[in-house]
Amino acid sequence: MKELTAKDKEFLLNSIRNIYDFPKEGIVFKDITTLLNNKEAFNLLMTHLEDRYKEYNLDYVAGIDSRGFIFGAALADRLNVGFVPVRKKGKLPGTTVCEKYELEYGFDEVEIHLDAFNEKKDARVLLIDDLIATGGTANAAAKLIKNVKANLVEVCFLLNLTFLDGKKRVEEHANVYTILDI
Amino acid sequence: MKELTAKDKEFLLNSIRNIYDFPKEGIVFKDITTLLNNKEAFNLLMTHLEDRYKEYNLDYVAGIDSRGFIFGAALADRLNVGFVPVRKKGKLPGTTVCEKYELEYGFDEVEIHLDAFNEKKDARVLLIDDLIATGGTANAAAKLIKNVKANLVEVCFLLNLTFLDGKKRVEEHANVYTILDI
Repeated sequence: MKELTAKDKEFLLNSIRNIYDFPKEGIVFKDITTLLNNKEAFNLLMTHLEDRYKEYNLDYVAGIDSRGFIFGAALADRLNVGFVPVRKKGKLPGTTVCEKYELEYGFDEVEIHLDAFNEKKDARVLLIDDLIATGGTANAAAKLIKNVKANLVEVCFLLNLTFLDGKKRVEEHANVYTILDI
Repeated sequence: MKELTAKDKEFLLNSIRNIYDFPKEGIVFKDITTLLNNKEAFNLLMTHLEDRYKEYNLDYVAGIDSRGFIFGAALADRLNVGFVPVRKKGKLPGTTVCEKYELEYGFDEVEIHLDAFNEKKDARVLLIDDLIATGGTANAAAKLIKNVKANLVEVCFLLNLTFLDGKKRVEEHANVYTILDI
């Protein structure tokens, strides 16, 4: 599979905007909407993802609510596999499996449909999201995928906030691939 | 452009699951996750959308938070144009334009980044969501796109709950294309 060049990575990184003090003071928010509305950047990213994952023999791509839907659905479409949403609690209408995780203050929950992978035995699944920080949500999402008996082949993030070291937590469940480490 | 056959429409419709009494008693929820995790259905839908919109000379596809992200991002990727998210209030980090709309009880708000279309004059935009019911959200989203001076070429929905007559409201802003009228 083709690696991204240093120049490609720089182009992608420069297409992402920093927003200071969002959602609260002291936080620098990585705004990927400026990558998405730049067709060259969006296409470069999707072509790289397709190129990497076309050899993985995936059955499904799962995306985390809601920016993970953007990359996950486009990638599932490129690979001609099914797309599965992992959602915040209360959004999925069918029978779900639920996983709680800790936030800075309090808890949150993510869910997946119990039959998300059509009861296919050992379905090969890639989990994707835009960014990994402490890894709380991704860790819970990875657990969900394993709880419904799928084979979580890899977890992929566009951005990795390396100073928060979230990657290590998710690596307990599967290999983790991060495109831009910052 | 190629129309979907009656058989294709029936296949898509049958891939969508009815969930009774969600989110509350008396409501039949149209669950599109069973279309998304069916690779034949998902691919048929995306191929139809690509086939229709490749002749529209679009600059951007905008998707409504959050199921509109799924179809919108995959379509933007197929057409090699930018993707723009219209989001629930408080989710977009940059300077936004905001539009309030009425719910059964109370109000909700959607937002778009003021520079979502890169200040491109008369950017040709398609707005997409999974379903139109009363059309409140889509109507507000359409207003937002016009408020940031883009050219809203068409609004597209996979499903149209015809008995709620929401299409008429959105037609005040642009042509509306619905794939499955139920």
